[in-house]
Amino acid sequence: MGYPDTFEGFCVDSPKSWNKFHKSELKPKPFEDNDIDVEIECCGVCGSDVHTVTGGWGEFEGPLCVGHEVVGRAVNVGKKVKNIKKGDRVGVGAQVWACLKCDTCKEANENYCPHLVDTYNAKYEDGSTAHGGWANYIRAHEYFTFKIPDALESHIAAPLLCAGITTYSPLVRAGVGPGKTVGVIGIGGLGHLALQWSAALGAETYTLTHSPNKADDAKKLGAKEVIVTTDKGFAKKWAFKFDFLLNCADMTHTFNMPDYMSMLKVGGTFHMVGIPDHPLPEMAPMAFTANAPKLSGSHLGNNQEMNAMLKLAADKGIKPLVETLDLSEAGCKEAVERVKENKVRYRFTLTGFDKVFGRK
Amino acid sequence: MGYPDTFEGFCVDSPKSWNKFHKSELKPKPFEDNDIDVEIECCGVCGSDVHTVTGGWGEFEGPLCVGHEVVGRAVNVGKKVKNIKKGDRVGVGAQVWACLKCDTCKEANENYCPHLVDTYNAKYEDGSTAHGGWANYIRAHEYFTFKIPDALESHIAAPLLCAGITTYSPLVRAGVGPGKTVGVIGIGGLGHLALQWSAALGAETYTLTHSPNKADDAKKLGAKEVIVTTDKGFAKKWAFKFDFLLNCADMTHTFNMPDYMSMLKVGGTFHMVGIPDHPLPEMAPMAFTANAPKLSGSHLGNNQEMNAMLKLAADKGIKPLVETLDLSEAGCKEAVERVKENKVRYRFTLTGFDKVFGRK
Repeated sequence: MGYPDTFEGFCVDSPKSWNKFHKSELKPKPFEDNDIDVEIECCGVCGSDVHTVTGGWGEFEGPLCVGHEVVGRAVNVGKKVKNIKKGDRVGVGAQVWACLKCDTCKEANENYCPHLVDTYNAKYEDGSTAHGGWANYIRAHEYFTFKIPDALESHIAAPLLCAGITTYSPLVRAGVGPGKTVGVIGIGGLGHLALQWSAALGAETYTLTHSPNKADDAKKLGAKEVIVTTDKGFAKKWAFKFDFLLNCADMTHTFNMPDYMSMLKVGGTFHMVGIPDHPLPEMAPMAFTANAPKLSGSHLGNNQEMNAMLKLAADKGIKPLVETLDLSEAGCKEAVERVKENKVRYRFTLTGFDKVFGRK
Repeated sequence: MGYPDTFEGFCVDSPKSWNKFHKSELKPKPFEDNDIDVEIECCGVCGSDVHTVTGGWGEFEGPLCVGHEVVGRAVNVGKKVKNIKKGDRVGVGAQVWACLKCDTCKEANENYCPHLVDTYNAKYEDGSTAHGGWANYIRAHEYFTFKIPDALESHIAAPLLCAGITTYSPLVRAGVGPGKTVGVIGIGGLGHLALQWSAALGAETYTLTHSPNKADDAKKLGAKEVIVTTDKGFAKKWAFKFDFLLNCADMTHTFNMPDYMSMLKVGGTFHMVGIPDHPLPEMAPMAFTANAPKLSGSHLGNNQEMNAMLKLAADKGIKPLVETLDLSEAGCKEAVERVKENKVRYRFTLTGFDKVFGRK
């Protein structure tokens, strides 16, 4: 068998062998009129991939093909598809389907649809499995397939499809812009993009990090000042400072939350997009009374936000800092190991898909 | 000694003797030009009084006089006071001072001023102690002394000064009104007022309770429907229903938080005003991703909200359901014991102050 009946991807079998990838045949969902098949050119490596393969976010059924920052060419376009033509360069992020009928979808919150299908480790309602993008092809609904602006190179665009939208959406939904003060916690795969969005949106932007050696990078990316969170009593100086703290570190379980909460203006928000495997630290209800802080989180963004983000990146030259690795058993292994050990500045994109799948 | 040099109040000495009240002499702060002395006519009994005398919210130095829902007559008015005249019937809530100079105060958030002085168990910057309202007099800054509308009887107005503003402020700050769906959790001292505000503000209002025997009361107070939280799987039917859940129960530590969070619309808020002695239950960061819920809390309200709330209560006939008890050693004991055991429907006001202090 082969395309279009089956795809081929680099997979792991279980959390015990989370860094042992092998090529495996994958059966996609049946092709429907709103679907698009994408011949994949490259795919980003996301913290979620590592949380998933290691079992940190729960069990899974192998073989599992991860990857949800996909860029490639539309090679088959369902007959009801409106905005994408065969041959278009397109991207697919961390979601491939939603019902588009429920109240949540109708309110442009399809990224929270109770019936949504994640890009991998997920089932469609017909029982088909969704497979990720460390593969030769991906099949996705048109509403979750986005044209990539010409100004963005493929390996640069890839991380925007998950890390980009994950950080962009909460900032715009919080009304971040001129007159707002934003702190981005954690300069990593998510944070180094959040800094750029926040600055581009016009907010006074700071970064909070336990790695002072990333300070120069943070300033280049838009931070006015770097707050080092290993300094004793670091929070005191910044009491009542921030409208919005965007926590991009998946280390929340190690935080002294009252410190962070105390840095918020009255009614300000501590928002989480870095999602650790561990529970949040213990919190006293009283921690929510001194300045009426909000604790919140989010999941990706909607269709309109994705298109607006890609346009903003193209218009303002916003780019993730990307290291490329060739897709292979060794490349996948190196990618997940280095992401797990936090040894990447700041994002990987797996490339060389044509070669490994013998296409050119 | 005696007024104006000293006041006299019913006090406890330590958390060990939390229900043993005795009359004690109290030294107020020095009288300043913005201060008002109130001859107290009655004072409400608040859950905070019980959390404080039992030591649940921390240690205290006795003798401690609690009470922060004070109504009485202005008998001495500082020469810089603008809006209150001698003889006015006024109220004092749970805060008696703020700097009124910091950014937080200037943003009309004086209830979150980092220098604020609570009505009792608190020190002024000069080292004076603030004493509560189970006493013959109270001294407060004019900004925290409010004219009581004629339409409100004193013993009815008293609980509005803490329970009222505590539930009113977060509702108006959340934009609760027509088109919004609100759930009030807990039908008690706070909740039975929250229901009335929410309905009066025009929101579609529900109540969530583990006491189905309060259902009739809740409906009379404005609830469209009563959701019983001891029913297994109660949350499922109400997924994505609420813009705002106002948690008035100080039992959050016993809640299965993902159940409550799942009832929120995307970006909706679970807001806490009932503040238990215990930490919040353990929460997974993932609980903040399925529908982008916000978890928040608040403390009282500002000056403008207090006046608006008193006017709304007077205009619309909104009243706490109040049982009165005479101020005495026995009355204070009964009040704190029955509040602790949740045996009050729904609020106590201590009365008979003139008699116990031999004034008339």
